Amino acid sequence: MGPQVGIIMGSDSDLNIMQAAADILTELGIVYELTVVSAHRTPMRMVEYATKAQERGLKIIIAGAGGAAHLPGMVASLTPLPVIGVPVKSSNSIDGWDSILSILQMPNGIPVATVALNAAKNAGILAASIIGAFDPVIGTKVATYKKNLEAEVLKKADKLKQEGWQNQFDQ
Amino acid sequence: MGPQVGIIMGSDSDLNIMQAAADILTELGIVYELTVVSAHRTPMRMVEYATKAQERGLKIIIAGAGGAAHLPGMVASLTPLPVIGVPVKSSNSIDGWDSILSILQMPNGIPVATVALNAAKNAGILAASIIGAFDPVIGTKVATYKKNLEAEVLKKADKLKQEGWQNQFDQ
Amino acid sequence: MGPQVGIIMGSDSDLNIMQAAADILTELGIVYELTVVSAHRTPMRMVEYATKAQERGLKIIIAGAGGAAHLPGMVASLTPLPVIGVPVKSSNSIDGWDSILSILQMPNGIPVATVALNAAKNAGILAASIIGAFDPVIGTKVATYKKNLEAEVLKKADKLKQEGWQNQFDQ
Amino acid sequence: MGPQVGIIMGSDSDLNIMQAAADILTELGIVYELTVVSAHRTPMRMVEYATKAQERGLKIIIAGAGGAAHLPGMVASLTPLPVIGVPVKSSNSIDGWDSILSILQMPNGIPVATVALNAAKNAGILAASIIGAFDPVIGTKVATYKKNLEAEVLKKADKLKQEGWQNQFDQ
Amino acid sequence: MGPQVGIIMGSDSDLNIMQAAADILTELGIVYELTVVSAHRTPMRMVEYATKAQERGLKIIIAGAGGAAHLPGMVASLTPLPVIGVPVKSSNSIDGWDSILSILQMPNGIPVATVALNAAKNAGILAASIIGAFDPVIGTKVATYKKNLEAEVLKKADKLKQEGWQNQFDQ
Amino acid sequence: MGPQVGIIMGSDSDLNIMQAAADILTELGIVYELTVVSAHRTPMRMVEYATKAQERGLKIIIAGAGGAAHLPGMVASLTPLPVIGVPVKSSNSIDGWDSILSILQMPNGIPVATVALNAAKNAGILAASIIGAFDPVIGTKVATYKKNLEAEVLKKADKLKQEGWQNQFDQ
Amino acid sequence: MGPQVGIIMGSDSDLNIMQAAADILTELGIVYELTVVSAHRTPMRMVEYATKAQERGLKIIIAGAGGAAHLPGMVASLTPLPVIGVPVKSSNSIDGWDSILSILQMPNGIPVATVALNAAKNAGILAASIIGAFDPVIGTKVATYKKNLEAEVLKKADKLKQEGWQNQFDQ
Amino acid sequence: MGPQVGIIMGSDSDLNIMQAAADILTELGIVYELTVVSAHRTPMRMVEYATKAQERGLKIIIAGAGGAAHLPGMVASLTPLPVIGVPVKSSNSIDGWDSILSILQMPNGIPVATVALNAAKNAGILAASIIGAFDPVIGTKVATYKKNLEAEVLKKADKLKQEGWQNQFDQ
Repeated sequence: MGPQVGIIMGSDSDLNIMQAAADILTELGIVYELTVVSAHRTPMRMVEYATKAQERGLKIIIAGAGGAAHLPGMVASLTPLPVIGVPVKSSNSIDGWDSILSILQMPNGIPVATVALNAAKNAGILAASIIGAFDPVIGTKVATYKKNLEAEVLKKADKLKQEGWQNQFDQ
Repeated sequence: MGPQVGIIMGSDSDLNIMQAAADILTELGIVYELTVVSAHRTPMRMVEYATKAQERGLKIIIAGAGGAAHLPGMVASLTPLPVIGVPVKSSNSIDGWDSILSILQMPNGIPVATVALNAAKNAGILAASIIGAFDPVIGTKVATYKKNLEAEVLKKADKLKQEGWQNQFDQ
Repeated sequence: MGPQVGIIMGSDSDLNIMQAAADILTELGIVYELTVVSAHRTPMRMVEYATKAQERGLKIIIAGAGGAAHLPGMVASLTPLPVIGVPVKSSNSIDGWDSILSILQMPNGIPVATVALNAAKNAGILAASIIGAFDPVIGTKVATYKKNLEAEVLKKADKLKQEGWQNQFDQ
Repeated sequence: MGPQVGIIMGSDSDLNIMQAAADILTELGIVYELTVVSAHRTPMRMVEYATKAQERGLKIIIAGAGGAAHLPGMVASLTPLPVIGVPVKSSNSIDGWDSILSILQMPNGIPVATVALNAAKNAGILAASIIGAFDPVIGTKVATYKKNLEAEVLKKADKLKQEGWQNQFDQ
Repeated sequence: MGPQVGIIMGSDSDLNIMQAAADILTELGIVYELTVVSAHRTPMRMVEYATKAQERGLKIIIAGAGGAAHLPGMVASLTPLPVIGVPVKSSNSIDGWDSILSILQMPNGIPVATVALNAAKNAGILAASIIGAFDPVIGTKVATYKKNLEAEVLKKADKLKQEGWQNQFDQ
Repeated sequence: MGPQVGIIMGSDSDLNIMQAAADILTELGIVYELTVVSAHRTPMRMVEYATKAQERGLKIIIAGAGGAAHLPGMVASLTPLPVIGVPVKSSNSIDGWDSILSILQMPNGIPVATVALNAAKNAGILAASIIGAFDPVIGTKVATYKKNLEAEVLKKADKLKQEGWQNQFDQ
Repeated sequence: MGPQVGIIMGSDSDLNIMQAAADILTELGIVYELTVVSAHRTPMRMVEYATKAQERGLKIIIAGAGGAAHLPGMVASLTPLPVIGVPVKSSNSIDGWDSILSILQMPNGIPVATVALNAAKNAGILAASIIGAFDPVIGTKVATYKKNLEAEVLKKADKLKQEGWQNQFDQ
Repeated sequence: MGPQVGIIMGSDSDLNIMQAAADILTELGIVYELTVVSAHRTPMRMVEYATKAQERGLKIIIAGAGGAAHLPGMVASLTPLPVIGVPVKSSNSIDGWDSILSILQMPNGIPVATVALNAAKNAGILAASIIGAFDPVIGTKVATYKKNLEAEVLKKADKLKQEGWQNQFDQ
């Protein structure tokens, strides 16, 4: 089966942030593809990528970008598929506000599902939860993943107790 | 068939913003339900709503909230379904920053698909595009909807030309 | 002679802001065209407008947009011409930050000449000063325009003096 | 006697910030407990912790959280006890604004006593001043603590004078 | 019995905001006093008010202030009692940031329990929850108050259902 | 005697804000002059005003400006006199941040004494306190003015008491 | 031929940022000059530089400044030439907001073409695109430069594919 | 002669910032004193310092503080002397906004002459320019100091020319 999720970013320098989306999709058993598509440097490649995404079998596009981050919104304008935007904090960013607002504040008609600053991992989990809403196998994996988060926290609570912190709640 | 989308909000005073989500879902032929669930005033109702959502057949939850907006994130922590968050600008809001950041900046593991400030309409469209990625009938409606946006813009361009604005591009 | 400046905006609702660019160009004797081009609702029209701009004889493009304002930057990515961006404060704007940052914070390689919030008049004057740097007739008009600003201020200073405010500087 | 103050945080990675609350409570002779409770990763543990807090004898809950910081507000919605919120600056924080606004901007009915960014020590002192308002022994300790702050400043003023800085005020 | 809570504000022009604290305290059966104390215009009155508060029997001080809001923090520096700060949005406020940050960002040793912008009602509820932690009668009233919030939300949910909004959750 | 304080502003449209500086100076018996000087529209007039200020007998310049507010800083670069800057909130202001930061954040060597947004009255009082530090007559007037502020607050406190608000502090 | 572009900055400490403008102009075959002109430390030098710029044959001025950045706007008030402003993030900058707003928010009549924070390279490219709009040789170089950006991105896409990332788009 | 300027700060940890005020005052031949006065930790010392400042012969007080910075404003409320406020960026500062707004946004009646973030040197220069407006010896020193700034810039311009940067302006 071909990839269900397309992960794109404006430059390979964003890969250190965006790889987290790929990793969690792998962990959850979802096939993805990953490449570089720049809204500003390769606008026609972007048009082609976005307009062909659905016919190529993709279900969701994850797009990461920094600064005046136009990639997620422009892709969303060119495909009926859901687009998840990851605001990346670029080197001359105004504290991340630029990429967040450029991705989030889309006009009526063209939404982008925006996640937290640099939160590529959450973009992957969101993609999985979308697929999982329609595919019970993935749905179960997502549910299990969230339950495991709980187990990890309980382990940490136990560790603190072992270290001697008073805790009358967990008797 | 039961509703695929659950629209919830912290108070019926948010209905004037959130109704736009309901309207566009109706327009796109998607069945939804809509009610009041408050993270802070009815925490146990929220827990019950979120934990039963999947078994009740919902595919997506749209949650709107203002100020310290915890509803979308808390619901996301209690269901494997995708949750779309609508930051509502409340009456004592710090320019909307409070609801945006409270919804957007979720920790790893628990994403919320955040849309623009007060953008309930876009939340509905995003929900439709998610359903449409797996349901061709809805997918076609979403694609048609986006194409109609184009037609409206072209009409506006034509109107300006009729009004006498020089425009050598549209000959 | 065809238009030297193309004024575009995402919706005719921005015309009340953007018309100021047209008015000042008319006042300075520069031929322009004006139409609606939306990055998100008519992406292919935007591509065509931008890629044909130079061959159609335009020298400068003025693009106004609000919210996640992608029009100026995307046009700049598709033409070698200088693009002037006008951040428009939209109805759900985060105090204008969204449109300013979406237009200003462009990546290396693709600049947009950004002016102040809602400052379409200044976009027109900037376009005139650009043309005036190469066309002495327009250059003189721009210089005269700026001198007239001085005369207006002096008249205001005189008016305050007439109204009785002490002013020993202007004896 | 059981603990009067419960200190909770979303992850043991917040312990380096939150330990300051524990330390000052120890210094002021107040018994506390400390554990990990995550709003998003262990929502049901949070519900249980908050709803049982009063019957377990706690008087005050100190909750630290970063990013979209829902723990303090959600706990406050589940207990009649006063809740002190410590905004923690997380690694991808928008300069701390996210955690501050997520904790501070609570809706009517459900207040959280918010302290400064990362100010766990002040959360502990605030808890002590609350207990001290009803328990004269602790009240005296808090008053003494604040007086000692004065003594430390006077020592610093003296030190600067010894180092040769002119100071005619402290003759 | 004398007042347990002192409500102070810098000017009677803040009364339209601060009265909400008085109203809710009355509703919850807590005796308060209310007057004008200005940090900047009556600094010595402030010193006297703060230093005598404890011996006069007050348990908590609620202080509201706008702009460069020094009243809550200065009072906190002069009394061992807990001080609740209400950031008031003044007429030339920078969107409320000034009063929030002036009250919230107190240095180590001198905490102020800060509530949301203009949230005098929540200041009153917080004061009640503090008293209620040590006084079972008030504690029960606070618990009842929070439960009533739930009932109101359920009524609103029911009202929306009556109005015809589909809601399969509340069968 | 000629004016000791020069009040300047970029446009007579700022007079509704800046007149408060004139009014308080009149009240405190300080002679001033007032006129329009624009950094951007009359740069040479600004140069002349600033460079001649000292020889003309001015002691202090109060400069009000909005948006990219360059007048106070540029005047400060052209005179050894102290310059007080009043950030005016212009019609397209980004919440006043633009004028505040443009006036406040001067480089080393060229300070501007900045007051609050739109706080022309405080600019006048600051000028009076500067003159009063060297002129005992004015110094006494400033001290009296500040004392009167106290009296006004006490009257307000009394008024609230008359209206029935409990106040055991002012017995 | 003399320089077409004048690059000025307030201090040689800005050269590490501003040199990028010089480098790209060299790469694109445009003659420039570069020197230090400070609005606040050498106001008369600034006046002379700006008023003589046109007669000396300059077509465009690029001005970089940090903090309360007045150089670009003041130069624009003294010349009919187009002025490009580069907001430089100074050492005590408020996250760059100060220089951005001081340069961007110019009043009507005196625009500055503002580029992104520290984006001196983009200032150079913008200058080149302005010259290129009237000089076909430079116009072609700019067009080629932008095309090369595309080629670089395609190389990066290819590199990622070589490294093993699945990519069904680029078959 | 006793000191004319009093430099105070909340902690000796601010000395590394505030010493710059002392250094420039020494350079300009103005006698100062310097000590630690904390608004929050030594409120009564602050009251005494401020109320005695004038009778002790001080002309100006420079007060530096970080976070919720109340020292400058409180001192201004207790003395008729002009008070210069230096916003210090503390370790848990929200990018300096907290100290800037806490010092700048004073209410009507009680101005503080605020300088840039961490700009203690400029506070010293401002104090000197205030004294210099009434004392010709100091006035001349301030004028000379500002002229020397010009000379330094010209040297830097010359240095860049020596290094080979084309500069046709300085022939």
